[in-house]
Amino acid sequence: MGSVKVYGPVMSTAVSRVLACLLEKEVPFHLVPVSLAKAHHKSPDFLNLQPFGQVPAFQDGDVTLFESRAICRYICDKFVGQGNQSLMGPEGGGAAGRAAVDQWVEAEAQSFNPPSTALVFQLVFAPKMRLKQDPNATRDAEGRLRKVLDVYERHLGGSRFLAGEEFSLADLCHLPNAHYLLAETDRGQQLLWSRRNVARWWEEISGRPSWAKVVEMRRNAAA
Amino acid sequence: MGSVKVYGPVMSTAVSRVLACLLEKEVPFHLVPVSLAKAHHKSPDFLNLQPFGQVPAFQDGDVTLFESRAICRYICDKFVGQGNQSLMGPEGGGAAGRAAVDQWVEAEAQSFNPPSTALVFQLVFAPKMRLKQDPNATRDAEGRLRKVLDVYERHLGGSRFLAGEEFSLADLCHLPNAHYLLAETDRGQQLLWSRRNVARWWEEISGRPSWAKVVEMRRNAAA
Repeated sequence: MGSVKVYGPVMSTAVSRVLACLLEKEVPFHLVPVSLAKAHHKSPDFLNLQPFGQVPAFQDGDVTLFESRAICRYICDKFVGQGNQSLMGPEGGGAAGRAAVDQWVEAEAQSFNPPSTALVFQLVFAPKMRLKQDPNATRDAEGRLRKVLDVYERHLGGSRFLAGEEFSLADLCHLPNAHYLLAETDRGQQLLWSRRNVARWWEEISGRPSWAKVVEMRRNAAA
Repeated sequence: MGSVKVYGPVMSTAVSRVLACLLEKEVPFHLVPVSLAKAHHKSPDFLNLQPFGQVPAFQDGDVTLFESRAICRYICDKFVGQGNQSLMGPEGGGAAGRAAVDQWVEAEAQSFNPPSTALVFQLVFAPKMRLKQDPNATRDAEGRLRKVLDVYERHLGGSRFLAGEEFSLADLCHLPNAHYLLAETDRGQQLLWSRRNVARWWEEISGRPSWAKVVEMRRNAAA
């Protein structure tokens, strides 16, 4: 299975972001279970891998890393010659091509991720964890996400993918949260399908075989 | 002044992050004023540069970018042969050296930035804007920031800088928010100075000539 290890549950959005990237790059890996319910992510051994006690942690031989987007960039750089070779920008695109991808990876992290994570928590995880839903938090997250998606709708009117004509790490980073929103919430479906360009983009990026494999891994984990 | 333009006010933390990076890399630039008070960042011309209507926007010839951390990585890649050459990891460090920096850039973005921004807003900007301070938001932000700084304190006990023995983009990214916390709030001083390794680290990184220049630019802008 190679020397790459990902520590964490496949249900985690950050873990599945890294798995989708490894599958795009055709890098064999071993997924090491970490039970959040048993607080394994707060154990001393795990904190040696990931000082904040969050998933995923990542190992490639003697390289240990944390933070899913940094791990994804590392995978693209380390395994540059295999699998999808335009995840960090078109070949020969140089610093500008890489940055065109990177600015939308950051947009996902800074603008899309906070409200979509909050909405997924309120609508999907709070009921599963038998926590009380907070209508104000839901409304606030939905309002912020709507504004972000309006920007995406305009941008995707003139661009097949976020960073141009090729699927890239920028698109990939959106898959985990958008999947939860669409697969498990009516509000998410309304937010994404009501925007024509966002819907077209989502249909294309969620059809990647890499992502289908992650969804299958989740289904098996839940079964 | 070269062809690099940064659009935005120097008082913005994200703008000053980019300026510190340009100064480290010895890249000449032109700072183009954008009045947030007059909502210039929501004008059609500005939205063509920055679709979310946020500062900074960045131009290098015909390359236009947004998101401060993506802009900083671009500056390091494009101007690789000049100024500070270890901002994205030690020379010859390869993918692993770059990722060691990048994971702490992400830690800043994901873990340090949200609570420190919230605390700076409550303690510094709300009074200036004559907005009512929210004691719950202040307490929540301070609690989250304390936990993050405890992780930094442990990590910096075994490492001179965040990514090893050299000052890097990971350290640089913390300068703007930490500066506001320390320069303008008692709580921030208490949080940072009470942690020995964090205090030692802050003293070293805030003494960079690049950052002194940004602070001087801010002082002139405020005068």
